[in-house]
Amino acid sequence: MQSYHLVRNADGTAELTLREREIPTAGPGQVLVRMRANSVGFRDALVQAGDYPLPVLDDVVAGCEGAGEVVAIGAGVTRAKPGDRVALTVFPDWIDGPFRFEYAAQLGGTRDGVLAEYAVVSEQAVVPVPEYLSYEEAAALPLTAVTAWNALTGGRRILPGETVLVLGSGGVALAALQFAVVSGAQVVATTSSGAKAARLRELGAHHVVDRTEHPDWATAVRDLTGGRGADLVVDVAGTVADSLRAAALGGEIAYVGYGVGGTGAAAPVDARTLFDSGVRIRGVAVGSRAQFDEVLRAMKVHRMRPVLDPKGFAFADAAAAFAHHRSGAAFGKVVITHDTP
Amino acid sequence: MQSYHLVRNADGTAELTLREREIPTAGPGQVLVRMRANSVGFRDALVQAGDYPLPVLDDVVAGCEGAGEVVAIGAGVTRAKPGDRVALTVFPDWIDGPFRFEYAAQLGGTRDGVLAEYAVVSEQAVVPVPEYLSYEEAAALPLTAVTAWNALTGGRRILPGETVLVLGSGGVALAALQFAVVSGAQVVATTSSGAKAARLRELGAHHVVDRTEHPDWATAVRDLTGGRGADLVVDVAGTVADSLRAAALGGEIAYVGYGVGGTGAAAPVDARTLFDSGVRIRGVAVGSRAQFDEVLRAMKVHRMRPVLDPKGFAFADAAAAFAHHRSGAAFGKVVITHDTP
Amino acid sequence: MQSYHLVRNADGTAELTLREREIPTAGPGQVLVRMRANSVGFRDALVQAGDYPLPVLDDVVAGCEGAGEVVAIGAGVTRAKPGDRVALTVFPDWIDGPFRFEYAAQLGGTRDGVLAEYAVVSEQAVVPVPEYLSYEEAAALPLTAVTAWNALTGGRRILPGETVLVLGSGGVALAALQFAVVSGAQVVATTSSGAKAARLRELGAHHVVDRTEHPDWATAVRDLTGGRGADLVVDVAGTVADSLRAAALGGEIAYVGYGVGGTGAAAPVDARTLFDSGVRIRGVAVGSRAQFDEVLRAMKVHRMRPVLDPKGFAFADAAAAFAHHRSGAAFGKVVITHDTP
Amino acid sequence: MQSYHLVRNADGTAELTLREREIPTAGPGQVLVRMRANSVGFRDALVQAGDYPLPVLDDVVAGCEGAGEVVAIGAGVTRAKPGDRVALTVFPDWIDGPFRFEYAAQLGGTRDGVLAEYAVVSEQAVVPVPEYLSYEEAAALPLTAVTAWNALTGGRRILPGETVLVLGSGGVALAALQFAVVSGAQVVATTSSGAKAARLRELGAHHVVDRTEHPDWATAVRDLTGGRGADLVVDVAGTVADSLRAAALGGEIAYVGYGVGGTGAAAPVDARTLFDSGVRIRGVAVGSRAQFDEVLRAMKVHRMRPVLDPKGFAFADAAAAFAHHRSGAAFGKVVITHDTP
Repeated sequence: MQSYHLVRNADGTAELTLREREIPTAGPGQVLVRMRANSVGFRDALVQAGDYPLPVLDDVVAGCEGAGEVVAIGAGVTRAKPGDRVALTVFPDWIDGPFRFEYAAQLGGTRDGVLAEYAVVSEQAVVPVPEYLSYEEAAALPLTAVTAWNALTGGRRILPGETVLVLGSGGVALAALQFAVVSGAQVVATTSSGAKAARLRELGAHHVVDRTEHPDWATAVRDLTGGRGADLVVDVAGTVADSLRAAALGGEIAYVGYGVGGTGAAAPVDARTLFDSGVRIRGVAVGSRAQFDEVLRAMKVHRMRPVLDPKGFAFADAAAAFAHHRSGAAFGKVVITHDTP
Repeated sequence: MQSYHLVRNADGTAELTLREREIPTAGPGQVLVRMRANSVGFRDALVQAGDYPLPVLDDVVAGCEGAGEVVAIGAGVTRAKPGDRVALTVFPDWIDGPFRFEYAAQLGGTRDGVLAEYAVVSEQAVVPVPEYLSYEEAAALPLTAVTAWNALTGGRRILPGETVLVLGSGGVALAALQFAVVSGAQVVATTSSGAKAARLRELGAHHVVDRTEHPDWATAVRDLTGGRGADLVVDVAGTVADSLRAAALGGEIAYVGYGVGGTGAAAPVDARTLFDSGVRIRGVAVGSRAQFDEVLRAMKVHRMRPVLDPKGFAFADAAAAFAHHRSGAAFGKVVITHDTP
Repeated sequence: MQSYHLVRNADGTAELTLREREIPTAGPGQVLVRMRANSVGFRDALVQAGDYPLPVLDDVVAGCEGAGEVVAIGAGVTRAKPGDRVALTVFPDWIDGPFRFEYAAQLGGTRDGVLAEYAVVSEQAVVPVPEYLSYEEAAALPLTAVTAWNALTGGRRILPGETVLVLGSGGVALAALQFAVVSGAQVVATTSSGAKAARLRELGAHHVVDRTEHPDWATAVRDLTGGRGADLVVDVAGTVADSLRAAALGGEIAYVGYGVGGTGAAAPVDARTLFDSGVRIRGVAVGSRAQFDEVLRAMKVHRMRPVLDPKGFAFADAAAAFAHHRSGAAFGKVVITHDTP
Repeated sequence: MQSYHLVRNADGTAELTLREREIPTAGPGQVLVRMRANSVGFRDALVQAGDYPLPVLDDVVAGCEGAGEVVAIGAGVTRAKPGDRVALTVFPDWIDGPFRFEYAAQLGGTRDGVLAEYAVVSEQAVVPVPEYLSYEEAAALPLTAVTAWNALTGGRRILPGETVLVLGSGGVALAALQFAVVSGAQVVATTSSGAKAARLRELGAHHVVDRTEHPDWATAVRDLTGGRGADLVVDVAGTVADSLRAAALGGEIAYVGYGVGGTGAAAPVDARTLFDSGVRIRGVAVGSRAQFDEVLRAMKVHRMRPVLDPKGFAFADAAAAFAHHRSGAAFGKVVITHDTP
């Protein structure tokens, strides 16, 4: 079988390297999954850019988002059986409850990832994929949709009619927008492109603020909400200082991360602005398996599908998929499809 | 001006009695409202049936749900001005936060109600009515929509994709159904009539259980949810024992009240069933002014309108409106319109 | 090695039966524990009385509360090592987050229990015992202290100065009392014995209501709190109807269970009383491993010790320990000590 | 009567200016309070330093913390009567629920304050003082203890045994320390003086970190907690960046404010550090009347007293009291006593 490994460079960045290995076997409590699709997540990009805060083992199998078919199970496995269509959780040990350090192992970091023809994981680390979703769609969820869901549902309770502001149109932003729409929020999105604005409206955004027209987008958002500001800001851009100005008193910033590779490095937050805003800031990083289950339940009820970039890639072209993601040209998740075995 | 008063009978019931009085004046901090519409709420019905737990003053002006136009304001008033279209809160002293006994005064109970041509209330007790709503629609909200909102949003957080079960098609049930739909829940409603079932589906119910076909509706609901049960039951029927069987482990019953007049008196709840269910029961009674503001914000974003029974009544025929409500034939709120002054 | 098994009688009750078996071995991810102490919990009593709602396998090893020393570990185990002093969780699969049916397997129910000389459990199902606690003290915690903790901390937030009412002086009640005291609550306990009243006061109860003097103890509690009632009632007696009368508006009843063997069967709850009370009722059953960790952290900071009944028992006399528990004469947990191996 | 007014200087700072006025009268819904004691709060200091974010009327009566005796009531007043000992809320319109802009009027800002011989306020803005507290003690609470309480109880739930870190020994810090102790937390305090360290221990701190010995106090706190960090940091110093390093994953920083007068201006917060910490930051500013009631209830149950600086001041020497506060030499609240009328 083939798998992509992360080989560390001297400067801290990491290179995708294809290797040939034996197909692993499923030990007690484990399942063997024939991967059918992967997607490229910002976390993978951060790791390759050498810009990821958690430890990454050298030569670890890359990839934290994938879906496939269970082809074998180890002794004592009850949660899955051969033939099951499953997605894999990014943090295999984070089953339920809040994040704790003891749940910190992650695919493509301190555990072998899923950018491979086969992967072995604990039976605790798979979730069933609803029939109406393709493998490519399922592969777009483990990091991206779960993070977006956590941003929307893991902190301040958002009531129907409250305003959710989603920054940009990256994968997490698009998923957050979709979840905000079904939650009954008034949804505001920002973008710097007229073409993307139309797409964001199609996805259900009530208002789109073009950052080119409104460089002071925070004020524009405040104006759109009658001066109140957004009750929840899903900040995937590291613009916390601006987000604070766009957020309502008593609101929350779900702070999902920061730009890749140092560019767009997050501006520092003035402590006084923070205090005066009356806003809570909450860091959000993926979610538990229980939250992934919630994601799939919500998606199924609303027959939601993740937004996939139209330009799909073959497993052999994984490096090109990452390059496409890095280029910023994608709208939706960049997906990698495996040849049907 | 004319107003309807509740005159107590020897048996504890109360009679609607029309009286002629002077138009009251607005003192400091108060507003005078020319009532334009009222609606009939189950609380008013309970009071007339002598079946209401909180104190009711003898000869108090009836009516806890109404909307109208501010025609005069007292000294120091800043929250309203003549010409404002307003609805009135049922508990005038309950501004924000959880219910406390010191907020217990209520319209048509220990304070004069709004089934009158004019009403004087504290400026703290009015909320602005969005333009797109008629006075009749606004009059359908103070008790009914606020109670439904509290049931949906005041207790267990309901995630998109979770199941909300709404019992029957009374005013609170219909409002709860509408709010559950915009919240992204999977919504199940029960009814005993095929005609109502169609209406409930139009309002957005994903599933309707006909209690005539399924006398054991709790089991039917459990089957519809793959055995899980409903994460939230809005129980307006006093059927807590059955609701417990329909509710999911970790779910909640928002228990809104009990049938009018002793018929349909609530069956007692077996303590062991309660324990084994893993369900929380929460009594819900109206809500604060802050919650009324939330209701109107949510309605405005979604351009929601309350369901009104097509058979409207004139102020002179208020007794007939109550009788129609009592008959159980209404679908939606029974509304009383005042002649334009 | 010896172990006690639950052998079902025709009438649904179960008998403790001593058997001789091979010492089991720890498989991958498992640990072998030399049990050093057990305690008798109300759950074990319910199982023997044939009065337990969850499934119990025939001939399963009895006992859900115990502590001991790790003597061997299976492949891949990282959470424990030989020599570790550990207590075992009652629900071995319930690691974190809220209870779900998939976590329902339990010691002495659908998994072999710990009333045995040795037990094998998943490494996920042990928690380290602080040094200052004896094995007997540690064995008193897995069901009893964790349930009490969940009652105090798993539902309505109790602020310092709010009132917690604890009913009776069973194991869970005493633990709840201790936790309520360190939480800064005003603590009220009930008892039917003057001798126990003194003990409850020593444990920190601010007020003790003697149910013999005050058969209407609910009113007595309300009087003690200036008419407000208790913000949290830890009801281990199944007296929900009375607890409702003792509880404050907006308060909560943490309903822990019901009497053993049908006697003292819980009186039904009137739905109207429930509604009028404005009280939430929440069933509480044990807790997750994460909650057990919280228990131990809190105990360690406050150097708390569980209350043990002075009459300890040897492993050979386990049946006598259960009989002593059934007699109601115990004050504190009934503990069983193993001979040092 | 005499009152101190804030007279704005050209540079934005404000001067305490004594004026002679008529005793005001209580209008409908108002009470007239003969002030008996005041205290100096950091908010008053910020206002005088011209460093306060909310609007301050020119020539407004100064002072946001005070207690006194009700000497007259206006029409319709039911919450107070002559002779009542009361403290006054800082935000007279903030009765209950979360802070909203419509509750923003405050004593000594946009409403006349209480550094005066008499004050008139709404009956909604007074709370009864328990008998065991002196007027001086009561005057130390409205801003200081309520803010500390909000920091402890208004955000993340702190369980017994979790760690609360309190920075410094200002008024809010000391009150937060006291509340943390009765909440059952493990309490860590920081100080830069050995003498203060002893006082902090007397007040119940489990650990005191001397910032002189440990300039890197954040690491010292982390070490004290076995690497975990503090579950709640009450940051009254504007050192959010350091507090983030001292806080536990999943913890919260209750950010109470920032140093007076630009010195000690808060260092900016690095967005990445914020994200990586997994910590929530929540701004805290005073609290509602309902929270003040909670404060008094908790204090009464535990017979708590606020820490008062031994150096008391007479009303005529108010300016000296402010100077003493500014000097940083005080330990505990600086209190001003009125001559008994």
